[in-house]
Amino acid sequence: MTHKIAILGASGYTGAELVRLIAEHPNMEIAALSAERKAGQTMAEVFPHLRHLELPVLCKINEIDFSQIDLCFCALPHKTSQEVISALPNDLKIVDLSADFRLRDPEAYEKWYGNPHSALEQQEEAVYGLTEFYRDQIKSARLVAGTGCNAATGQYALRPLVEAGVIDLDNIILDLKCAVSGAGRSLKENLLHAELSEGYHAYALGSTHRHLGEFDQEFSAIAGRPVKVQFTPHLVPANRGILATVYVHGDAKVIHDTLSAAYDDEPFIQMLPMGEAPSTRHVRGSNFCHIGVVADRTEGRAIVIAALDNLTKGSSGQALQNANLMLGEEETTALNMAPLFP
Amino acid sequence: MTHKIAILGASGYTGAELVRLIAEHPNMEIAALSAERKAGQTMAEVFPHLRHLELPVLCKINEIDFSQIDLCFCALPHKTSQEVISALPNDLKIVDLSADFRLRDPEAYEKWYGNPHSALEQQEEAVYGLTEFYRDQIKSARLVAGTGCNAATGQYALRPLVEAGVIDLDNIILDLKCAVSGAGRSLKENLLHAELSEGYHAYALGSTHRHLGEFDQEFSAIAGRPVKVQFTPHLVPANRGILATVYVHGDAKVIHDTLSAAYDDEPFIQMLPMGEAPSTRHVRGSNFCHIGVVADRTEGRAIVIAALDNLTKGSSGQALQNANLMLGEEETTALNMAPLFP
Amino acid sequence: MTHKIAILGASGYTGAELVRLIAEHPNMEIAALSAERKAGQTMAEVFPHLRHLELPVLCKINEIDFSQIDLCFCALPHKTSQEVISALPNDLKIVDLSADFRLRDPEAYEKWYGNPHSALEQQEEAVYGLTEFYRDQIKSARLVAGTGCNAATGQYALRPLVEAGVIDLDNIILDLKCAVSGAGRSLKENLLHAELSEGYHAYALGSTHRHLGEFDQEFSAIAGRPVKVQFTPHLVPANRGILATVYVHGDAKVIHDTLSAAYDDEPFIQMLPMGEAPSTRHVRGSNFCHIGVVADRTEGRAIVIAALDNLTKGSSGQALQNANLMLGEEETTALNMAPLFP
Amino acid sequence: MTHKIAILGASGYTGAELVRLIAEHPNMEIAALSAERKAGQTMAEVFPHLRHLELPVLCKINEIDFSQIDLCFCALPHKTSQEVISALPNDLKIVDLSADFRLRDPEAYEKWYGNPHSALEQQEEAVYGLTEFYRDQIKSARLVAGTGCNAATGQYALRPLVEAGVIDLDNIILDLKCAVSGAGRSLKENLLHAELSEGYHAYALGSTHRHLGEFDQEFSAIAGRPVKVQFTPHLVPANRGILATVYVHGDAKVIHDTLSAAYDDEPFIQMLPMGEAPSTRHVRGSNFCHIGVVADRTEGRAIVIAALDNLTKGSSGQALQNANLMLGEEETTALNMAPLFP
Repeated sequence: MTHKIAILGASGYTGAELVRLIAEHPNMEIAALSAERKAGQTMAEVFPHLRHLELPVLCKINEIDFSQIDLCFCALPHKTSQEVISALPNDLKIVDLSADFRLRDPEAYEKWYGNPHSALEQQEEAVYGLTEFYRDQIKSARLVAGTGCNAATGQYALRPLVEAGVIDLDNIILDLKCAVSGAGRSLKENLLHAELSEGYHAYALGSTHRHLGEFDQEFSAIAGRPVKVQFTPHLVPANRGILATVYVHGDAKVIHDTLSAAYDDEPFIQMLPMGEAPSTRHVRGSNFCHIGVVADRTEGRAIVIAALDNLTKGSSGQALQNANLMLGEEETTALNMAPLFP
Repeated sequence: MTHKIAILGASGYTGAELVRLIAEHPNMEIAALSAERKAGQTMAEVFPHLRHLELPVLCKINEIDFSQIDLCFCALPHKTSQEVISALPNDLKIVDLSADFRLRDPEAYEKWYGNPHSALEQQEEAVYGLTEFYRDQIKSARLVAGTGCNAATGQYALRPLVEAGVIDLDNIILDLKCAVSGAGRSLKENLLHAELSEGYHAYALGSTHRHLGEFDQEFSAIAGRPVKVQFTPHLVPANRGILATVYVHGDAKVIHDTLSAAYDDEPFIQMLPMGEAPSTRHVRGSNFCHIGVVADRTEGRAIVIAALDNLTKGSSGQALQNANLMLGEEETTALNMAPLFP
Repeated sequence: MTHKIAILGASGYTGAELVRLIAEHPNMEIAALSAERKAGQTMAEVFPHLRHLELPVLCKINEIDFSQIDLCFCALPHKTSQEVISALPNDLKIVDLSADFRLRDPEAYEKWYGNPHSALEQQEEAVYGLTEFYRDQIKSARLVAGTGCNAATGQYALRPLVEAGVIDLDNIILDLKCAVSGAGRSLKENLLHAELSEGYHAYALGSTHRHLGEFDQEFSAIAGRPVKVQFTPHLVPANRGILATVYVHGDAKVIHDTLSAAYDDEPFIQMLPMGEAPSTRHVRGSNFCHIGVVADRTEGRAIVIAALDNLTKGSSGQALQNANLMLGEEETTALNMAPLFP
Repeated sequence: MTHKIAILGASGYTGAELVRLIAEHPNMEIAALSAERKAGQTMAEVFPHLRHLELPVLCKINEIDFSQIDLCFCALPHKTSQEVISALPNDLKIVDLSADFRLRDPEAYEKWYGNPHSALEQQEEAVYGLTEFYRDQIKSARLVAGTGCNAATGQYALRPLVEAGVIDLDNIILDLKCAVSGAGRSLKENLLHAELSEGYHAYALGSTHRHLGEFDQEFSAIAGRPVKVQFTPHLVPANRGILATVYVHGDAKVIHDTLSAAYDDEPFIQMLPMGEAPSTRHVRGSNFCHIGVVADRTEGRAIVIAALDNLTKGSSGQALQNANLMLGEEETTALNMAPLFP
């Protein structure tokens, strides 16, 4: 059986990544692609790398007949996403890639995103889309909220450790190195090649990045007490990849064992042997997340390093993984491709 | 039916690329991987991006039982390749990715590669592996010689034009821009990141690049007279991609029509609309070749531009395409993945 | 004696490059910096790499008292530049970096730039700023028109050859590879890091690039007959550099001799030994232009390759070189710094 | 008066960087350049970007008449450096860029570098070359030991804080992001462009990097008690730059004030306004170090970020700064050039 798929916001990088992945799916068919400002253009015009595919012409959202759609991916900006989704049919399966339904507490949403939430009903039913930890709920969910790409990376490194109580919850530092596609296809001076290449810097300083809302929500829920990590992202001159270097207080061997046990059966989370470190180049273009653990020379301190591709495992790959579950497909379908290296 | 595959020289980039592609093939199984100097290591050690795959440990060639192998890819250096292949079983299907069997004339081989050919028997039976133009012979071939990546790019731009007689054969200039993975995983100073990034230059100046041997052989054969093109490759700071800007004397419209007709049914060759130019970023990691044609302001002059990924369509993708034909598989199997962008 | 300098359009890359260079000049003082939209900001805010310098705050052009200025650099967009310059004092020395005064024929200007010229008086007195060939006129000029960066590169490779009559004027092909800073600090999708890095492509196809106006004007004037070259620029993933690969019909030895003789006394033009090719990485950040000559295997054909930094020798370095001449300074002052490698 | 300068190990990146800088020095003359394996070659052959300079041909060390040399820079590998320096004249002024004389304790040297020190006499007289903190001793030193580039960056962020006692000495984490030129011009697989570009990773995990020897020595000496920081370097795809993100326990305002006071008169250390972060692109090719301070959302935690160019301020620029002091020159001579951006 072929599922009919719509992608809203198909002219951005996560939209294009969804098309790339779904094109290999034996049981999905892309039935509609929306892009308000580029409606009427073909995907080949907007993304020439997809010119070999037969795809619907880009349209406006209100031109889509959603009664013919089995599942809809929303790759729209936050705030726009909640407005659009609240107007979609109540029984339409949706995977949202925006930030709009990640935070369960409307006040937390408003604090981190600056505007009151306008789709509280949908917010309530949304399931947090970190597949490995919400798998059962996702299977029966109507609306799944894709996680932030940084939030996913940090959680893969930390969730089993918070849950097992093997690290000090008051001394967690996440130093992230992020590639530029995470900022989207937006026209900002600091995203120009001439500005970004050949240099790197920290941003969202002092733990002010919005993805902290997700860390706070998830780690506190697991721990049963407030957990507030430190988190500094850095922008590096590469197109894809997030590398999270996580500094914790705890025993490295116990940490490695805990993570290994937690991810033993996971198809996409790969634990490296003790002492080895992952590289973003080795997960590029794939749905895999590589995790390494190392003991520091200072007794009782350890470093956990996680690497994934922000557009795939951190966003569109995760979205497809969740859609597979929601549609009763094999979870890994169309997601097993090897990373592209070099 | 599952074909058992061996890859000789699996520790280089074309070897790794073969593994990446074959991993998605429903009817191929990698049964042996050789790498003389890295024998005993796992592929995960040599190429961590492949760590999710179950693969044989790297071995030496003489440890492989070729009676169990249906098809063997040779991704060895030239000269080594002919020595190895001449010692392999006479009935083993082989796709060679080296330069050793591309030139039919042993004197031409010696002229361009500097050593006399030591496997003349195999050279004689080898079929030139430019799939779109040797498809029928490849189907029944035992030994197929993969083309040079630059040679493939230039031929895609020019072969139908030479054949149709629509360009001046004495005024053909190929200006190629090549990414660095074409130089392989070799330890040379000029391939270091600090040397190569942030700059670009021409090399193999004055039409001295070895791939000219292939241009001379093929274009002269088609034209029925000697054809000697000018060819200058340039190394640019990117990992994958070849862009051939080809300057010809001829009518642009006729040229576009001729190429369009020639490639109309080809699954991997995509003609762009008249006046548009391809980009290497839009074929990256894929088996597609994009071709554009433009009229120059000078009457009777045209520019043909072809772009492909040197490791995929220019090398390992072509090799798998040929192997599919040799094994009776669908030609495009495991080769339809979309390019990786951004 | 210290010359008071104004830079109009200081918030762009050529403006910042002028500040970088002039900061080392013993006899120049930056007295005014304009940037209409960023007026009121400091240069440290707009270009943090210049934060160590004491510089005037950015202002609007009409806030500058030009009676206190000895020489004014205009780094404004074309069309804006002519409007601004026609309103400046008649006796103010000006080096214009825009395209507005490069073409002597108003019709040619309108053809290539799309608008009628609105400062014909100034256009008439403007001297073309290719220092090595207009040195004497520049010394006594009031208004010097900086050349296009691509136009400069191509002319360094070709002017002495056109003048000496040692190449066929009807068979000149310039294949240029340009870094991205030449496009300026403008917000365009194709200049984003995620779009540009890891790929390259041709643009302004079919000899339609505006710098052809300069080639046509200059080569035809030298030759005493119309000369129309073919010219295809390519955008490559690097920040600085232009590499011109020029295909000509002529004797390589004669060509090398002709260029060597022409540039023998030039402080910034470096001829490489016969057969060697330059690289953009070896002129990066400097005012040098490296030129190489190679014979093709086809008798009577040669390749001339020129490399320079588009922001320095191709633009702001050239501008300062001309300003030095106009102000009676040593031509090379503040321009001798070595390239930055790696 | 012109000082005659020798550079030993001129075929590496720090050697070339010294030449680039000294070429602008009015009172220094490069009298000898050594490179054992490339003796007999010109610098133009080894580093074409320096071809405009008149320089001595590369020679072997034993061909240099050191009685004619006023100051000698040693840019040799560690271990080699101590062997060479112990054989040089006892009264020759030397700036060593290797690791050989950085650690005052021979046991510490052996621990971090794996071999017993063979020039203990010279080790004893060597002055640690972090100019801003050893200025007076450097002025009268005969032998100055250039610091590690990572060690310099971390110390600029931390020394005044350790000295002032405003941070918790047992909770210091340095997360460094390093460009590739710091690894030198060595032929290693992981330094190839195809390996390094488009990805990034941590190395020297668990605080095992050799530059920790310097941190331990210096911080412990200042604090008067053992201080052991955590330090994880990461390799990012850029050629120049080190960014140190330093996580400390302390009051951000006090920290910013302490650093600002310490560096107020320093010509090359630039404090950013509170809350701003530096970028490596804004110090590239220069001798400046930019430092920013930010408060974390967690009370009592702060982040200090320092950026410098590893080849300039982190190595050859520092070396020239020290040489200026040793020779009685103005400390900043030939070191004021602005960074190269973009």
